[in-house]
Amino acid sequence: MNLDAIKIDKTSKIPLYIQISNQIKSLLDEGIIEVEDKLPPIRLLSQHLNVNNVTIVNAYQLLSDEKVTYKVRGSGSYIAPKSEELMAQISEFDNAENQVYQMKEAQMVVHDYTINFATATPKSNLFPVTDFKKAINYVLDRDLGEAFGYQEAKGYLSLRESISGYLLHQNIHSTPENIQIISGAQQGLDIVAKSVLNYSDVVLVEAPTYSGAIASFRSRGVKIVQIPMLVDGVNMNKLEEIIKRYQPKMMYTMINCQNPTGYTYSMKKKDELLLLAKKYNMFILEDDYVGELIYSKQNSLSLKSLDSNNQVIYIKSFSKILMPGLRLGFMIVPDKLNQSILNAKQATDISTSGLIQRAFDVYLRNGQWEKQLKQMKKIYYKRYQKMIEMLNEHLPRSINYYVPKGGILFWVELPKTMDSRVFYESIKHKEIAIVPGDMFYYSDRKNNAIRLSIAAVQEDEIEEGIKLLCGYLRDFLCMNKQKEKLPIL
Amino acid sequence: MNLDAIKIDKTSKIPLYIQISNQIKSLLDEGIIEVEDKLPPIRLLSQHLNVNNVTIVNAYQLLSDEKVTYKVRGSGSYIAPKSEELMAQISEFDNAENQVYQMKEAQMVVHDYTINFATATPKSNLFPVTDFKKAINYVLDRDLGEAFGYQEAKGYLSLRESISGYLLHQNIHSTPENIQIISGAQQGLDIVAKSVLNYSDVVLVEAPTYSGAIASFRSRGVKIVQIPMLVDGVNMNKLEEIIKRYQPKMMYTMINCQNPTGYTYSMKKKDELLLLAKKYNMFILEDDYVGELIYSKQNSLSLKSLDSNNQVIYIKSFSKILMPGLRLGFMIVPDKLNQSILNAKQATDISTSGLIQRAFDVYLRNGQWEKQLKQMKKIYYKRYQKMIEMLNEHLPRSINYYVPKGGILFWVELPKTMDSRVFYESIKHKEIAIVPGDMFYYSDRKNNAIRLSIAAVQEDEIEEGIKLLCGYLRDFLCMNKQKEKLPIL
Repeated sequence: MNLDAIKIDKTSKIPLYIQISNQIKSLLDEGIIEVEDKLPPIRLLSQHLNVNNVTIVNAYQLLSDEKVTYKVRGSGSYIAPKSEELMAQISEFDNAENQVYQMKEAQMVVHDYTINFATATPKSNLFPVTDFKKAINYVLDRDLGEAFGYQEAKGYLSLRESISGYLLHQNIHSTPENIQIISGAQQGLDIVAKSVLNYSDVVLVEAPTYSGAIASFRSRGVKIVQIPMLVDGVNMNKLEEIIKRYQPKMMYTMINCQNPTGYTYSMKKKDELLLLAKKYNMFILEDDYVGELIYSKQNSLSLKSLDSNNQVIYIKSFSKILMPGLRLGFMIVPDKLNQSILNAKQATDISTSGLIQRAFDVYLRNGQWEKQLKQMKKIYYKRYQKMIEMLNEHLPRSINYYVPKGGILFWVELPKTMDSRVFYESIKHKEIAIVPGDMFYYSDRKNNAIRLSIAAVQEDEIEEGIKLLCGYLRDFLCMNKQKEKLPIL
Repeated sequence: MNLDAIKIDKTSKIPLYIQISNQIKSLLDEGIIEVEDKLPPIRLLSQHLNVNNVTIVNAYQLLSDEKVTYKVRGSGSYIAPKSEELMAQISEFDNAENQVYQMKEAQMVVHDYTINFATATPKSNLFPVTDFKKAINYVLDRDLGEAFGYQEAKGYLSLRESISGYLLHQNIHSTPENIQIISGAQQGLDIVAKSVLNYSDVVLVEAPTYSGAIASFRSRGVKIVQIPMLVDGVNMNKLEEIIKRYQPKMMYTMINCQNPTGYTYSMKKKDELLLLAKKYNMFILEDDYVGELIYSKQNSLSLKSLDSNNQVIYIKSFSKILMPGLRLGFMIVPDKLNQSILNAKQATDISTSGLIQRAFDVYLRNGQWEKQLKQMKKIYYKRYQKMIEMLNEHLPRSINYYVPKGGILFWVELPKTMDSRVFYESIKHKEIAIVPGDMFYYSDRKNNAIRLSIAAVQEDEIEEGIKLLCGYLRDFLCMNKQKEKLPIL
């Protein structure tokens, strides 16, 4: 292993040991180091990086805690094989009352006075209302009633052109004919489900995953098969086994900073996923909800940008960076699905609001979107750093969390024996809001993780909120330990 | 029969004989006169109304041509029994590629230079852009970013309250809890389909009907059974037979000025329909797309206003009176469907644009909606009168049309042996656009009717366009007659 591959930034607020640990995980993700590789000796690395031995000890301890490595006494640290079990669950659609599955996140109750780590929606004071108001008025003066007429079902042409141009910056080559404007990402999921999935088809999803996607798929009467999400993407051998067994029509995935885990697929796994899709003629539905919010340059390519075989349906939402209530997004549609997706869009709501499409086109062409993106990225990055700082400082040692490459979500894992739903119930009337991990599984399994979002919390709230949370977590751990000591009656 | 029931307006532009014929049809629709009733003697009625005998002769001839009455030589005219055949067609869903049925109207190509009797969408120069722009700016100044946040999935509370208040004028008693805001009527159809219909369920539709509804239902993999639409609503005995045979979950209907026929259910049939829904525990989906545009006071009650058993799901679009591109409408939802429809709305697009909801709320509360409605009604009524005048004057005698009670659609029936699709093909590159009747049937049956819409044609265009149309129709009739004379080879 080349020691130069590990780079640290001594001016950064992220503790050095975290930086080192993250670097090693990145190298693993990118396939530069592999399972059973030995980590550099502590003294060697500390000299190379010019840091204290203890820093390296802490970094390696973190990796070991996170089960990324295992230690061999008297020898050193080695990259651990992933201890995943095939968790594929097949759930027959019951042709009963309950065919519209409730989006689980919608069940959350959050009070105004809480520090809200639950919502993935930014607060409205960050919305570029003034700029967007200008764009709306400009459009109304320019287009008059045309702005309120039916639009092309595919979407306003000028907007599809400007999006296609914008996508070049993301290494995605598209044409306006392959862009389908949608009234938000959720509608995209619904339309794709209608176009691709028929009753009794199989669809693959990561576990955990976004419950709104499950709701859309389930509404089609399909079978849903879950495959465990790992820090660098699902296990490709297991995926192939599942594909062979169930012959799924489609797999739903979030490649970068997955919801809820924040995990990102390694470059190697992205390539492998596309190869499997080609080999087994399976569509991939890529939901890119925070692709712009990767804080490192490496490894943030979308699957669509690598999709030479045109099997990826790409959905893009503007909710997290612009404004969720805009109800605007787009899809990039493979040629062979173009007509059926257009038909499904028409049958769903005929067309997306012309006023909003036209105003956003102006907003995009004026460079205001880029400006807003830059600003939001800066704000989120500060929160992200604060979050890491606070979690590192306050999280009890028996609780792990994953440092995402970007985005807005942190996945915090309690000891495996514990039930995060019970923890959630114990604090749901307190000053902080979180989401228990079971919200992101199709089946109602016990789960030991919680999701923390930084979309709606300022840095001072993060500071206060994480301290509170960690206090509650410590109480919860104590309580559980006491319980374990109780005699069984 | 009481002669006073027939009223005429000598100052109206509508010819007297048409007025008399329409009055008699209304009396029939309302159940005041019935099948096998005898019409008043010609001389008696002409004296009573103080008009020429020939006027009554023409009126009775029109009713006879339209098969509303039959003549008995030496005795007089009698109301005819409806000559309907049970046309129920059951169409198995083929679990194949084509599960997203294309909305047939979307296939229409219309050029800019045409007189457009095809579109049911008003022209954008009638949209209240200035007023709505004011409402938007008012909301943006008042609510700032809140206007762009996620809204309650059920809809913005203040809007649901103002709609509930507005509905009282329509004799509909609702609560804000039963109002579901939707992104246009098409979305309403989609959401209801998701909530109520499962794979292999049966849904009843009128034939002909709106193809966008068929598209939504078909996408659910249901069986669609069509029942012929008659001038006063479907035959209730036949309906009961079909219900017994297929046990449908739901029936889709447009009670007032049906699309495409313009037919309106009689009061008697409205009551009977509700009784059948109760007896067989069937939901009714009422699509009220032009309920405000009835030009007589009588008989424009919605089914929802009569729905004491809470089995009617009511969908209201603002497309025809306000602006189609607004993508806003609402549903009134029976209690027992409230939760599943809310879930389906969330899985469909999470919520409808907050900005548009808030602006429309302001627009409604300021009384601007009522103002716009009044204005549009006036405009449409003038077109409606001009349409009747021109059709009466120019339509070849072998072609019938129905005078609707209101709305924007006219249904013109060619002789039964003729195929309106062939006629459509023969004129589709000419200066006028129409819709052939087969667009409104689920199966691709030959059809002899065409639909004419006055949504986007001004009075002068109606004058010119109907003259042109009638010329083409005459040519078409001649051509067909010549063909019939040809020896069979």
